[in-house]
Amino acid sequence: MMFADRILSLCQSKNSRLVVGLDPHWDLIPESFKCGFNETQTAALLSGYMNNVIDVTHDHAVAYKPQIAFFEQFGLPGLIALKEVLDHLHHLQCPVIMDAKRNDIGSTAAAYARTFFGDRQLPAAFPSDALTVNGYLGADGIKPFLQKTEHGIFVLVKTSNPSSGDLQDAAFADGTTVADRMADLLETWTADHVGQFGYGNVGAVVGATYPKHMIALRRRMPRCLFLVPGYGAQGGSADAVKAAFDERGLGALINSSRGILFPPDFEAKGFEAVREAAVEAKTDINRILS
Amino acid sequence: MMFADRILSLCQSKNSRLVVGLDPHWDLIPESFKCGFNETQTAALLSGYMNNVIDVTHDHAVAYKPQIAFFEQFGLPGLIALKEVLDHLHHLQCPVIMDAKRNDIGSTAAAYARTFFGDRQLPAAFPSDALTVNGYLGADGIKPFLQKTEHGIFVLVKTSNPSSGDLQDAAFADGTTVADRMADLLETWTADHVGQFGYGNVGAVVGATYPKHMIALRRRMPRCLFLVPGYGAQGGSADAVKAAFDERGLGALINSSRGILFPPDFEAKGFEAVREAAVEAKTDINRILS
Repeated sequence: MMFADRILSLCQSKNSRLVVGLDPHWDLIPESFKCGFNETQTAALLSGYMNNVIDVTHDHAVAYKPQIAFFEQFGLPGLIALKEVLDHLHHLQCPVIMDAKRNDIGSTAAAYARTFFGDRQLPAAFPSDALTVNGYLGADGIKPFLQKTEHGIFVLVKTSNPSSGDLQDAAFADGTTVADRMADLLETWTADHVGQFGYGNVGAVVGATYPKHMIALRRRMPRCLFLVPGYGAQGGSADAVKAAFDERGLGALINSSRGILFPPDFEAKGFEAVREAAVEAKTDINRILS
Repeated sequence: MMFADRILSLCQSKNSRLVVGLDPHWDLIPESFKCGFNETQTAALLSGYMNNVIDVTHDHAVAYKPQIAFFEQFGLPGLIALKEVLDHLHHLQCPVIMDAKRNDIGSTAAAYARTFFGDRQLPAAFPSDALTVNGYLGADGIKPFLQKTEHGIFVLVKTSNPSSGDLQDAAFADGTTVADRMADLLETWTADHVGQFGYGNVGAVVGATYPKHMIALRRRMPRCLFLVPGYGAQGGSADAVKAAFDERGLGALINSSRGILFPPDFEAKGFEAVREAAVEAKTDINRILS
């Protein structure tokens, strides 16, 4: 099944547009959970915490987005933890959007595609359904990721961070920006193969922290799924979230990481607090759309 | 010692501007070397081949540039191989420029900085002296990599691949391009701390395949070290290589990967062919400069 169709079908059947970002910030993992683990047990602790999060949230999330940096920083034990988390997600049939922002020339992009999607030569080392990608190198760094329709990518267009405008907001003579130019490339790349909902497998990362950009970029890329970070902990707005969707309430996935993983009432309620945070985020997003 | 000063001192003492790219393309590893290894011994084969390459070339190269994708695609065994290669390079005191093209928002960039450079909390998982970075997210995705002066970064400006112009060549009203705008950002970032040779720790990736861009970008970024891919196998030109350097013959590092790792006469001469290829590349570059 085509990636875009699979994820949008899940949005309908689960009545959810929520993606849970798996960012194991070490300092934010509750002390009460760290008890009983020692320093050599990083992998068990990371995957244990994340798998508990997945267990209590997967009825409410349409996908999970592991941020590979937070695993990779622990070296091999961290990457073993990541594999355990991926195994758990695949067992539960939850789509995985790997947040790795890979980018390189064609032959190297092919090696990254093999790493996350696998090919005839090699099974995927870190099996994922979709991958975040940086499109600065243009089409030939993108095409290796689009070999099989069951896999999708989300290309950075307008990122949620404070300095995203340094390059992305630079304006051309006609008033359009670098982010707009990137958007036009994405719309071309995704148009090759559009699924039953009208969206292709090349999606866009557009931050919830810039509502005006969101409105303009949604118009500019009618066939690109949006992956929207920055809602919640980063201060993204409801207006931006609303503008990311089409009139059917489809076409965008809203990511929340810290707000769900590390709720303030964890010490009192444990993973029940995580479940409540996911339900609240899902409901909030649906309320904005209604 | 500051990264830029260390690498430029090595250029002088070794009379070399050559960086050897460690891209273990599986299909290119000579069959005669693969004999004696079975499928479960990927790690031993990859690190064995690369460490042999390092042994015969390190008198002629100022740094090594492992391409992490070609290790990561083999999963944990591939990353174990990478660690073995890094150990060998550190033992020989060879600088490592990790080619990983990382990029993300500030808190995640900090996790990547920890992965490759380490910090007070964690030793580096894949210890490197410098890292390639994609600057599409602007300053706050860059700063976490500049915490210690012994580490440098090389930010993508004009890449060597055929479609690099898709975004990078888009022109503003004043005739400058997106790559020029990125160059201006780098020059600002590196100006904070310039070493004894007049170069800072924020370098630029500029491909040898676009000579005109090379000339313009060298003028635009007088204080940025250049890391130049695309020479050799990708067809980069001598003109572009020459333009990358200052009048002292300093300021740029020329990368060669496949041309050195997999010379056509390997089956006849073994690693002696690799050594000869490195000497030839080093000499070629010096001849262009003289």
